[in-house]
Amino acid sequence: CPCPLPHGDCSLSRLLRRLLSARRSLEICLFAFSSPQLGHAVRLLHRRGVRVRIVTDAQYMGLQGSQIGLLRHAGIQVRHDQESGYMHHKFAIVDRRVLITGSLNWTTQAIQNNRENVLVVEDAEYVKPFLDEFERIWEEYNPINYRFF
Amino acid sequence: CPCPLPHGDCSLSRLLRRLLSARRSLEICLFAFSSPQLGHAVRLLHRRGVRVRIVTDAQYMGLQGSQIGLLRHAGIQVRHDQESGYMHHKFAIVDRRVLITGSLNWTTQAIQNNRENVLVVEDAEYVKPFLDEFERIWEEYNPINYRFF
Repeated sequence: CPCPLPHGDCSLSRLLRRLLSARRSLEICLFAFSSPQLGHAVRLLHRRGVRVRIVTDAQYMGLQGSQIGLLRHAGIQVRHDQESGYMHHKFAIVDRRVLITGSLNWTTQAIQNNRENVLVVEDAEYVKPFLDEFERIWEEYNPINYRFF
Repeated sequence: CPCPLPHGDCSLSRLLRRLLSARRSLEICLFAFSSPQLGHAVRLLHRRGVRVRIVTDAQYMGLQGSQIGLLRHAGIQVRHDQESGYMHHKFAIVDRRVLITGSLNWTTQAIQNNRENVLVVEDAEYVKPFLDEFERIWEEYNPINYRFF
């Protein structure tokens, strides 16, 4: 279902349901991730044995309320950019098959107060370029490539 | 073509080409619009007789560099939210047929420096909910509904 997201809990439930359907893998590529409910769901998937990988933005991830520290603490792999520009994507891929993308950052502010859209698509022609972009970023942001000076 | 957007001019050209293909109507629903090239293209379409309607975010539209003032000055209809939350969508619809959506705000910063995605889809099942959302917002943000106290 492609669904511009109206405000509030109903949409959050739908998003949670989609995520919790993951059985094998979850790729997350998010500028901002601070929603406790979504953080909880992702940790749950990790504990269930789903392979979770997260890419996020370096500037945002250290801000107060960010879930990134908790996710790393739980043992989930997280990589981030090293650039002055933002890693501004907002998408996730469930089991390499379902793309969840749109304007929504995974923050309580966005879920409750903003006008946002979330598009859920399963057509391979749309999912593939996002999978490719994720793998490209994942390699590019490998800590092995970090420059310290 | 669904296409996670790599940096730079090539993607801007593609986006411009898609926009400039409009013959009848262009709906734009954007949190931030400050790119001079994209502003120029939209004014050009307006002069060609394409019906352009823009919805944007109240907090962002007055910032320095915003194109909104110039677009209004050219005679293009613009409406904005009246809420504390953000109007955070980033989509456009060409001739009620082609949906352009993703993480990209139409700013030079985003186009040149960020990691972004833009998805172009023509399937009616995906376009329709965005068209509906635009019409819903357009009515909701009608100045007739503004509250001043």
